[in-house]
Amino acid sequence: MRVAVELLPRGPRPDVVLLVDVLRASTSIALLFERGAREVRVTPSLRLARELDADLVLGEREGIPPEGFFASTSPAEILGLSLPEKRVVYTSENLPAALLAVKDAPHVLLAAFVNGPAAVRRALELARDEVAVVAAGHRGAEALDDALAAGFLAKKLLRARPDAEPDDGARVAAALLKAYPDPQEALWQSASGRLLVSRGFTEDLAQASVIGRTDRVPRLVAFEEVRGQPVFTLIADGPA
Amino acid sequence: MRVAVELLPRGPRPDVVLLVDVLRASTSIALLFERGAREVRVTPSLRLARELDADLVLGEREGIPPEGFFASTSPAEILGLSLPEKRVVYTSENLPAALLAVKDAPHVLLAAFVNGPAAVRRALELARDEVAVVAAGHRGAEALDDALAAGFLAKKLLRARPDAEPDDGARVAAALLKAYPDPQEALWQSASGRLLVSRGFTEDLAQASVIGRTDRVPRLVAFEEVRGQPVFTLIADGPA
Repeated sequence: MRVAVELLPRGPRPDVVLLVDVLRASTSIALLFERGAREVRVTPSLRLARELDADLVLGEREGIPPEGFFASTSPAEILGLSLPEKRVVYTSENLPAALLAVKDAPHVLLAAFVNGPAAVRRALELARDEVAVVAAGHRGAEALDDALAAGFLAKKLLRARPDAEPDDGARVAAALLKAYPDPQEALWQSASGRLLVSRGFTEDLAQASVIGRTDRVPRLVAFEEVRGQPVFTLIADGPA
Repeated sequence: MRVAVELLPRGPRPDVVLLVDVLRASTSIALLFERGAREVRVTPSLRLARELDADLVLGEREGIPPEGFFASTSPAEILGLSLPEKRVVYTSENLPAALLAVKDAPHVLLAAFVNGPAAVRRALELARDEVAVVAAGHRGAEALDDALAAGFLAKKLLRARPDAEPDDGARVAAALLKAYPDPQEALWQSASGRLLVSRGFTEDLAQASVIGRTDRVPRLVAFEEVRGQPVFTLIADGPA
C-alpha cells in the first residue's frame, strides 16, 4: 500500500482521499456530525446557501457570519449547538475548490485533528492500494496547519501499516511533527490561524488542535451543480 | 520583505524566484558554470538538443545519456569536465516544466545546496519585495530533496533579513531542517535520489549535498520556442 501526501490538491487520486482543511472546514464539519447532524451540504455561494432547504445555514466571509446567517463556521461555536438529525448547509471559500479537485476519487473523507484517529481507521478499512492525504491549503498556497495535520495522519497511517510506502510528500509532512510537537504552535503561526486570531476566534485554534475528540468521519456522497455553483453532500460514517 | 516557498511551481511570482531542482538540474547547471561554461540552454527535447548549436550536449532519460550524447547530466561527472567559455545544451524532463511556470517573474535564478549561499546573496541584492523559493518537484509531485533545499534557502534568507515575513510554505520547508540535519539523508530517501541510486549514480547524491561549493548562480536570460519546444537560456552571475 502507498501513503501519499499532497500539500495542495492536484486532482483525483486512485483510491481513498483524506481531505484536510484544519482551519476550519474539515474540523467544523466533523464536529457538526458529532453534534448530531444527519447531512452537511457544502457550497461556496452565500446566495445559494440561503436558498437551499436546510435546518441550519452556516456562513462566513473571513470568519464572520454575514447578515441573515444564524451562526458562523467556528468549531468553538459548533460545539455549543445541539443538532439531532439536522440538515446543515455550510458555506466555505476554501473547501469547495479542494473538493472539486478530488471529488472523482473512489472515496473522499474529511479529516482533521479532531477526528484524525477515526479517519485513519476508516481510510484503512476502505483502501485497496493507497490512502492519499490531501491538504486543502489556504488561498491556493500551502498551509502550515493543513501540512502538519497531513503529517499527523500520514504518520498514523504508516504506523498502522508498517509495510506501506510513503511518497516524498508524506515524508515532508511527517517530518513537520518533529518541528511542531504541539499542533497548537503550528496553528498559531499559520496564515489561517493568524487571520482567525485577528478576528477574535482564538478558541477555534484550541478546539481544532484537540486530537480524536470525535469518531465521526464526513464522507462525500454526492456532487451537483445548482445554478452554476457546486454543492457537495456529506454524511458521516462511524458511531454517533 | 516576504520570503515565500512553493513546494511545486504554480506560476510566476512578482519579484525574485530561486528555482530548486536539486537532483539534478539546478545542481548540475550551477556546476557547469563552475567548470567554466559561458551559456547553458535547457530544453526537454533530445531531438532538438542534438540540433542546437553547442560545444557540448548533455542528455539523459532516467539518468542515462541516450545514444549520440557525449555525457549525462550527472553532477559528479560534470565536476570532471573543463568547459572554458563553452556553450552547453542541457536536456531535462523536469526543469523545463518548472521554468515554464516561473519564467515571467522579473528574476529567475537556479539554486541548490552547491550554490545556496551565493544564490541567497544574489537574490537579496535583486529583491525589492519578495524572494520566492520554488521547488521544481519530481514528476508533478512534491520532492523531499527540493523541499529540504527550499527550507535551507528560506532559513538563510530569513537569517539575513530578520524583518522578512515567511509564508506558510516557508515555515513548512524550514521545519524540515530539524528532521533532516544532514541533507544527504533526505536525498537518499527522496524519490529522485532512490531512482539515481538504483541506476548507479550514488556519487551524485554526495556531490549534490555539498553546501556552497560554487559562487555561480545561473540566471534565466531568454526564452524561445523552437519547433514547438521551449528553449531557456541561462548565464551565470557571480565571480568565475
